[in-house]
Amino acid sequence: MDRVIRIGLLGCGTVGAGVVTILDREADDLAARTGARLQVTRVAVRDTTIDRGLPLPAEVFTDDPMAVVEADDVDLVVEVIGGRDLAGTLVRRALELGKPVVTANKELIAHEGPELAEAARAGGVDLAYEAAVAGAIPIIKPLKESLAGDRVTRVVGILNGTTNYILTRMTEEGAAYADVLSEAQALGFAEADPTSDVGGHDAASKAAIIASLAFDTTVHAADVFREGIEQVSATDIEVASRLGYVIKLLGIASEIDDEVAVRVHPTFLPKAHPLAGVRESFNAVYVEAEAAGELMFYGRGAGGMPTGSAIVGDVIDVARNLLQQAPGPFPSSHRRKRLRPIEDLQTQYYVLLDVEDEPGVLAEVARTFGDHTVSIAQVWQEGSGDTAQLVLITHRAREGDLRTCVDALEASSAVRKVTSVLRVESEVWE
Amino acid sequence: MDRVIRIGLLGCGTVGAGVVTILDREADDLAARTGARLQVTRVAVRDTTIDRGLPLPAEVFTDDPMAVVEADDVDLVVEVIGGRDLAGTLVRRALELGKPVVTANKELIAHEGPELAEAARAGGVDLAYEAAVAGAIPIIKPLKESLAGDRVTRVVGILNGTTNYILTRMTEEGAAYADVLSEAQALGFAEADPTSDVGGHDAASKAAIIASLAFDTTVHAADVFREGIEQVSATDIEVASRLGYVIKLLGIASEIDDEVAVRVHPTFLPKAHPLAGVRESFNAVYVEAEAAGELMFYGRGAGGMPTGSAIVGDVIDVARNLLQQAPGPFPSSHRRKRLRPIEDLQTQYYVLLDVEDEPGVLAEVARTFGDHTVSIAQVWQEGSGDTAQLVLITHRAREGDLRTCVDALEASSAVRKVTSVLRVESEVWE
Repeated sequence: MDRVIRIGLLGCGTVGAGVVTILDREADDLAARTGARLQVTRVAVRDTTIDRGLPLPAEVFTDDPMAVVEADDVDLVVEVIGGRDLAGTLVRRALELGKPVVTANKELIAHEGPELAEAARAGGVDLAYEAAVAGAIPIIKPLKESLAGDRVTRVVGILNGTTNYILTRMTEEGAAYADVLSEAQALGFAEADPTSDVGGHDAASKAAIIASLAFDTTVHAADVFREGIEQVSATDIEVASRLGYVIKLLGIASEIDDEVAVRVHPTFLPKAHPLAGVRESFNAVYVEAEAAGELMFYGRGAGGMPTGSAIVGDVIDVARNLLQQAPGPFPSSHRRKRLRPIEDLQTQYYVLLDVEDEPGVLAEVARTFGDHTVSIAQVWQEGSGDTAQLVLITHRAREGDLRTCVDALEASSAVRKVTSVLRVESEVWE
Repeated sequence: MDRVIRIGLLGCGTVGAGVVTILDREADDLAARTGARLQVTRVAVRDTTIDRGLPLPAEVFTDDPMAVVEADDVDLVVEVIGGRDLAGTLVRRALELGKPVVTANKELIAHEGPELAEAARAGGVDLAYEAAVAGAIPIIKPLKESLAGDRVTRVVGILNGTTNYILTRMTEEGAAYADVLSEAQALGFAEADPTSDVGGHDAASKAAIIASLAFDTTVHAADVFREGIEQVSATDIEVASRLGYVIKLLGIASEIDDEVAVRVHPTFLPKAHPLAGVRESFNAVYVEAEAAGELMFYGRGAGGMPTGSAIVGDVIDVARNLLQQAPGPFPSSHRRKRLRPIEDLQTQYYVLLDVEDEPGVLAEVARTFGDHTVSIAQVWQEGSGDTAQLVLITHRAREGDLRTCVDALEASSAVRKVTSVLRVESEVWE
């Protein structure tokens, strides 16, 4: 066995170091599997003076990432820089040069995935990104390959570990959002600027990637309806629990009447659902397919070694394809589905109102719902005097109708404040 | 696109009909993905006179399966006959002829998998069997490909839907084994002769297949230590529940000190473990890997359409490889691990004893455990007079020591009967 696949690594933070570690530790095994030794020949880093304690000679490090992509002694590019601009330029250049790319860059793939996939197809090389969604959990390959002969109808995922950690602590300790977020930041489970996580941006990127593959269509991150968990209160969680639900930040992608709907928002999920038991910072993806039925994939969504494991899995595939000159399979976007606007969503809603505690209030609230063709499934009032609260769960209603109903409630003299509005996914899923 | 891959189907029961249905329904989509139309040209059945209501012309059916394998107009063989003798002969012949094989035959793969894989490698063609383990759940491909660069340390699976259904009903209704089995048979969830399921034979076959792939070694079905659920009583389940456990029939494959241990038996599993929530006839496979950490795969373990979905996923892979003349990846058994005998297993045990209700009994029982270097973690006595029962949970002990301890207990005058002995998997997994 004389063959060597020479790897150019772009970025060498936690994930890049994980990749180098695994490639070194499993070198003989990987050579046996791929038919070639996998050797990291160049590594682009911002600061070449740091000793990273990795089993690589000092001369492989450079601060010029484009030189790595273009180097004659690089056959395969692994991109773990992250972000869109520089990473996008480098990935496009590699594909143009006919060099396959393995990336963990969810932001890049979520925004430009279909275009990059097309560039890869044109270049006759692979673009692999298992690590971009849900870390170590194999979900891209099952969607792209195992379920390729089936018809996926819905994918529901817990796609962000930070928010799942926060919601788990809130649920299990009755704690307030702000307190748990501070604690998570102190422990390093949440970033100093947590917007990307708690605002649902990270989950929306992953939902776009999943929806594109699941429905063979083109969904960009900007197409995903998105709400974060910042407004979820201890009261919401307590009400949910009393009704038999947990609140999870879900990414939901579904195909309805030949349209695709993709959304990320905090959701009332029945406690008996397999996703409801996914605690702490774990991720999970639940898939419904016509023939396969219900499937779930569960694991670590982040971390240097889990993400490194997913990258090395991709590197093996890509290296084999390179040796056999047989790239693919390429993702397919041939079905080009129309995106369903969020206003046309049909689901159930939980509405929490601060109301005046006086006769006729319930009647007026009920009339307002009826006027907007939103039917009430459950209602009860709590507290009295200054703290009267009305909890309502609706039957399935159109999001557009619910929104105008909420506007009318806010304008109503009987309602002091619409405190919470959250979507409820019961047994009838849409 | 003129290319056609011609499929010979061996067997056309529920699963075979599922395959034909999916191939027909998704024909255009499959052609777009593979680059060739997938056409079923020959089908071997026992009785060619039955109208199966499938979208196939009558002349494709024959009662000569070898003629299908050898036919000039068959490029790829799908085997869903089941059993070892005939199926084995047909699969070997196909591989010898350089025709790739997709099979759902767990029994065949569990007994002859490594040898058949070698025949496939020699023939330069693929042998794919995703459908042989856990139906629609992609587990073979993740182990063989996604985790190929990682090091799997343990795989734990709920691999048989019938026994999981029975244990779920026993747990949730407090019902007796025999009653639930009769009910399951009446509902068609259990076979008239349930031995293969309740005796753990089916799960042991799947555990052997999983262990071979997870540890790159050769494990045959006969190498798997096996106990069924026939002896699990309502009392065992109730005691387990009180202690925070559920009883599941688990297949457990682990690598310890360069040896591989594979076993199937009813197990006390902590209620908080992700596998504990897998109810009814669902299957799930839990994987621990060095870099990836914990992963779980969940879904339907059986049924015509779920199994058909897994087969078609394999057919797509194999068809692509056939078109590109690039078979593989082949499973690797290059690590050839020694099998650890069950006597060397170290785990915790639950022991239920019928004892005489008189002074000195507990002391004698405790001394017997101590004499065999089995340390007791928890003990209590229930009932009195004729019905006194002693419940014991041990610390981790060697299986060989526990067995001689149980023999001594049975010979002891203080013990009327050793009612139950079950293994307990707590937080410290081995």
